[in-house]
Amino acid sequence: MTFRPRPTFPALAVSFLGTLLVLACTKPSSDPPAVESVEPTAIVAEWALAIHGGAGTIDRDTDAETRSAYIAALSEALSHGKAQLESGASALDVVEEVVRILEDAPQFNAGKGAVFNAAGKNELDAAIMDGRDLSCGAVAGLRTVRNPITLARHVMTDTGHVLLMGDGAEAFADEVGVERADDEYFYTEHRWQQWQKKLANDDQGKMGTVGAVARDKNGDLAAATSTGGLTGKKWGRVGDVPVIGAGTFADNRTVAVSGTGKGEEFIRHSVANSVSTLVAYEGLGVEEAANRVVHGVLAEGDGGLIAVGHDGAIALVFNSQGMFRGAADSNGRFDVAIWEEEYPGEAANSGQVDE
Amino acid sequence: MTFRPRPTFPALAVSFLGTLLVLACTKPSSDPPAVESVEPTAIVAEWALAIHGGAGTIDRDTDAETRSAYIAALSEALSHGKAQLESGASALDVVEEVVRILEDAPQFNAGKGAVFNAAGKNELDAAIMDGRDLSCGAVAGLRTVRNPITLARHVMTDTGHVLLMGDGAEAFADEVGVERADDEYFYTEHRWQQWQKKLANDDQGKMGTVGAVARDKNGDLAAATSTGGLTGKKWGRVGDVPVIGAGTFADNRTVAVSGTGKGEEFIRHSVANSVSTLVAYEGLGVEEAANRVVHGVLAEGDGGLIAVGHDGAIALVFNSQGMFRGAADSNGRFDVAIWEEEYPGEAANSGQVDE
Repeated sequence: MTFRPRPTFPALAVSFLGTLLVLACTKPSSDPPAVESVEPTAIVAEWALAIHGGAGTIDRDTDAETRSAYIAALSEALSHGKAQLESGASALDVVEEVVRILEDAPQFNAGKGAVFNAAGKNELDAAIMDGRDLSCGAVAGLRTVRNPITLARHVMTDTGHVLLMGDGAEAFADEVGVERADDEYFYTEHRWQQWQKKLANDDQGKMGTVGAVARDKNGDLAAATSTGGLTGKKWGRVGDVPVIGAGTFADNRTVAVSGTGKGEEFIRHSVANSVSTLVAYEGLGVEEAANRVVHGVLAEGDGGLIAVGHDGAIALVFNSQGMFRGAADSNGRFDVAIWEEEYPGEAANSGQVDE
Repeated sequence: MTFRPRPTFPALAVSFLGTLLVLACTKPSSDPPAVESVEPTAIVAEWALAIHGGAGTIDRDTDAETRSAYIAALSEALSHGKAQLESGASALDVVEEVVRILEDAPQFNAGKGAVFNAAGKNELDAAIMDGRDLSCGAVAGLRTVRNPITLARHVMTDTGHVLLMGDGAEAFADEVGVERADDEYFYTEHRWQQWQKKLANDDQGKMGTVGAVARDKNGDLAAATSTGGLTGKKWGRVGDVPVIGAGTFADNRTVAVSGTGKGEEFIRHSVANSVSTLVAYEGLGVEEAANRVVHGVLAEGDGGLIAVGHDGAIALVFNSQGMFRGAADSNGRFDVAIWEEEYPGEAANSGQVDE
């Protein structure tokens, strides 16, 4: 676990440093300075964007053509977001548009590429959050909405609610004119084969998600996540994606986060919110906070997350075999990667794959 | 907002205390002592139980008979939980049983007393969490389950999932033998009239929830919450109750929390998790942490929460006109109250009402 009850610090400090020091140190924690906000210590990047296309066991034997298709889809989404942020678009608009591109790509488990549930149907969840005022919207259990992330944004802006589910959410889609699609649209050969395999072998369903987090030129943060859930899922299972604070969170004062992996673990540990908490209370940088949660709270293989800090720093951290991911910022960074050895920053540029 | 980025503390400390002190003080926050857990400084109560039956605008002109029925229902639930905890029952068993009693009472907006949605149907949500290992279960959008909290517990114990919704969740109820009920069971004259009034006046739907939090003799914490949602709600709206970290949270190291009020605000601010965070990182007591969130983060009228700390301390805090609530502990406390002036500790005992 990443945190310990605060009493340990005074207790240890008494032993090592003496009573006077303890009093001086502990005072601010129970009675913090009356300031409302602070300037970030330094801006790492004027704008920054990170994306993911899911984490998990990604087969390294994937043929070159398939790998190239993944890399191309990530690169297209990243390029679009980069151009938008450069031209001054809001983080909120950018994360929605980038996630729409990933939803439309058949490679990823969201939108068109969503996996099939136990009944051979698709069930889609999504969430979006605006770091300026913590407003947020989410949808769960959609079967016919082409771009769930756009419906989530309508929930945020057009209703007093945060989370709509099932038939009700689809009726709302009609009211606001968000496009619906039939089963044929969501049919992809790859996902159908995955489902057939799942029916034959009763192993854990394939997980996967797409997401984007951004800091724009105004310093505003936003996060968006969308998923088709688990292959072969039953009983209307909902994962972490539409659970604000678990798979999705954004707060201008701290960080924007989008997670991907074993949703139940992300819910239990309030993963996205925990990264924000470590930035707020422990003063960690975004990379350190993300590492603390992914490698200290979650178990090996649970998945990963992408995050952009209030200072524009980017983290792409996972404890699974791989994570489809990309990062771009105003300093000229533009990386797309799948496995660990291609960790962005050390990795090849857009369009390249590993080795 | 309740938290500030940590850098403010070093910055102020430099001004006031000098560089050496800063280094001594700030070290632990970035590299905390390598301990896994600590003994609470002092146990306030060996066991403790808090319950609520919703918060909001509760009419003070309610006739004496109706008020007595509320007080009697709260007292019955509290008495049952008290007896169980005294005899060594687990916090998890107690919060489930207490919430079942409140679900069965027609007075509260949960289970039998659930409000009607826009279609004149009931839609029920619930969640339960075990502070020992952060395991949790939740259900959303149920229409036919008599005791949603028990189904939530089955989700926790019998599936690898956390959240099930709608028809899928009801199919799961059949698989595990959780009792279902028809529309007639959920019909209460009071809620029907409320719905008719809602149809006539397009005001905000009546909010309400029931919940329980407990510490047992082993020092284990648990939280449970159940609701019928908003009167006249549309589009499959889901509130904070089944969103772990928003309306419900429990962690043995910190606190068990159950919230009630404007669900969307509880989601946005991860309310239940925020109380835990303040205990963990700021070293606050449960009452101070609850006050900080309810009066510092939420807006006036948003609602309230009940919490029991790892030390057995109880908080019952709200910023609405009233909150149906009760508290009991191993020190002999047994309070039931509705409005502010009856704040438990200063208030009359079971069966009494205000004035």
